[in-house]
Amino acid sequence: MQKLKSHKSFEGTTEFWEHESRTTKTKMKFSVYLPQKSIESCIVWLSGLTCTDENFITKSGVQALLAGTKTMIICPDTSPRGLNLPGEHESYDFGSGAGFYVDATTPGYADHYRMASYVSRDICDMARQHFAAKRLSIMGHSMGGHGALTLGLKNPQTFAAISAFAPIAHPISAPWGQKAFQGYLGSDQNAWKDYDATELLRAGRRHPRPILIDQGKDDEYFAQQLRPNDFLEACHAGDQACDLRLREGYDHSYYFIATFLKEHIRFHLDALQA
Amino acid sequence: MQKLKSHKSFEGTTEFWEHESRTTKTKMKFSVYLPQKSIESCIVWLSGLTCTDENFITKSGVQALLAGTKTMIICPDTSPRGLNLPGEHESYDFGSGAGFYVDATTPGYADHYRMASYVSRDICDMARQHFAAKRLSIMGHSMGGHGALTLGLKNPQTFAAISAFAPIAHPISAPWGQKAFQGYLGSDQNAWKDYDATELLRAGRRHPRPILIDQGKDDEYFAQQLRPNDFLEACHAGDQACDLRLREGYDHSYYFIATFLKEHIRFHLDALQA
Repeated sequence: MQKLKSHKSFEGTTEFWEHESRTTKTKMKFSVYLPQKSIESCIVWLSGLTCTDENFITKSGVQALLAGTKTMIICPDTSPRGLNLPGEHESYDFGSGAGFYVDATTPGYADHYRMASYVSRDICDMARQHFAAKRLSIMGHSMGGHGALTLGLKNPQTFAAISAFAPIAHPISAPWGQKAFQGYLGSDQNAWKDYDATELLRAGRRHPRPILIDQGKDDEYFAQQLRPNDFLEACHAGDQACDLRLREGYDHSYYFIATFLKEHIRFHLDALQA
Repeated sequence: MQKLKSHKSFEGTTEFWEHESRTTKTKMKFSVYLPQKSIESCIVWLSGLTCTDENFITKSGVQALLAGTKTMIICPDTSPRGLNLPGEHESYDFGSGAGFYVDATTPGYADHYRMASYVSRDICDMARQHFAAKRLSIMGHSMGGHGALTLGLKNPQTFAAISAFAPIAHPISAPWGQKAFQGYLGSDQNAWKDYDATELLRAGRRHPRPILIDQGKDDEYFAQQLRPNDFLEACHAGDQACDLRLREGYDHSYYFIATFLKEHIRFHLDALQA
């Protein structure tokens, strides 16, 4: 593990790290904000398509919201880097920058694109062992919202709370999800369901806390790609508490995230301090 | 004038604009945050080397701080674009992305690099006429801090308040300033003094309000390039009130700006609402 950069921010530090991952068999980068030296808990943030470990930590304003607390945030990259697999760098919604938080099973990708395990193992271990966080929670945006919902529902004892901004909530019914799952998991659509938040609910997965979702009503991806209402219906059918907040006039951007991040941070702090 | 993008943010809108400037004889881009439709005043933000109209509005968190007020912010680009003057694109600290808020007099640059007039005329007119701001103030970072100090000291009736983060406060004594002024103004160093905040104070310029400056003590450019103490001495010698705040551990980055931006915004709101 190597610290690449450190910037004092709101009396804490914003840091950029690199480490060798045994899971992805590549170097991986991540960023953190540490509000102070003594850390008790950690929010895992998962970013969306095309992002790196830098987008959220530079654009969200999260430092102002965690300053003074004992809760850090850790932001992994969205895929392995430095490889040259077939088709890996040809489109924005598959391969580099688009790992989709699954463990791939297709040739070539299976060896490295193991972002589900990378987050639930490497990143969580790092938060616990290196930064001494005792409790964890998870949140994300778009593809990363999908990651937060699926990893949170599969690991409710690891993640004390789940929230998402504009998540890809039913990926097997959406072009982004179908393309990614075909590429990472092959053509067996039953295998896809294990990485679909709506299908996980239908299969009986639950989280003990209400799930918080914010969704812009003017988000261009709302109806076709994100499908939060599919997820909400599955919550209702399955007795999973979910607070889906539709926000008039807001789009899919970081401006939307920044606007409502304060409420999400409060939601996570409540759960982490409980 | 053309609106390129608009994103709802904190109940207002973050917008990106383009217009034809008669001053630079090029298209120019700028960004704004409008906390609501009814605007009373406007802060002009000037960015530093390598920046565009996007850096501050995406990284500073300013929207959260202006939300609910009637004060907008406008962020011009740091130079004309789309030209191909001799040497214009060869270095990060001269030419494109490095206009230094001067009106150039050297061949080629004199026709377009008129960023002092562009800010004090085009941008201020835009704020007043298009966005209906009645009062203005000015702030900036590094090269843009230099711009805020010089334009504010030269136009105290236009700008109700001046503040800066890590400004290039005595450019004729610093490598960045010497290189830029040589390139934009030629070798007559007397011409340089008209764009140097410390020299403007020595020549008798004053602003009726105290000038607010934040400076990280771990800023790598502090001693050689920024020289805020030269400016402070000139303030003391000339009876200009100045609040220079040295911040332990902070560097030159946007993480430093974001940390102390709340205090600067409060300082500007006080002046603009007075």
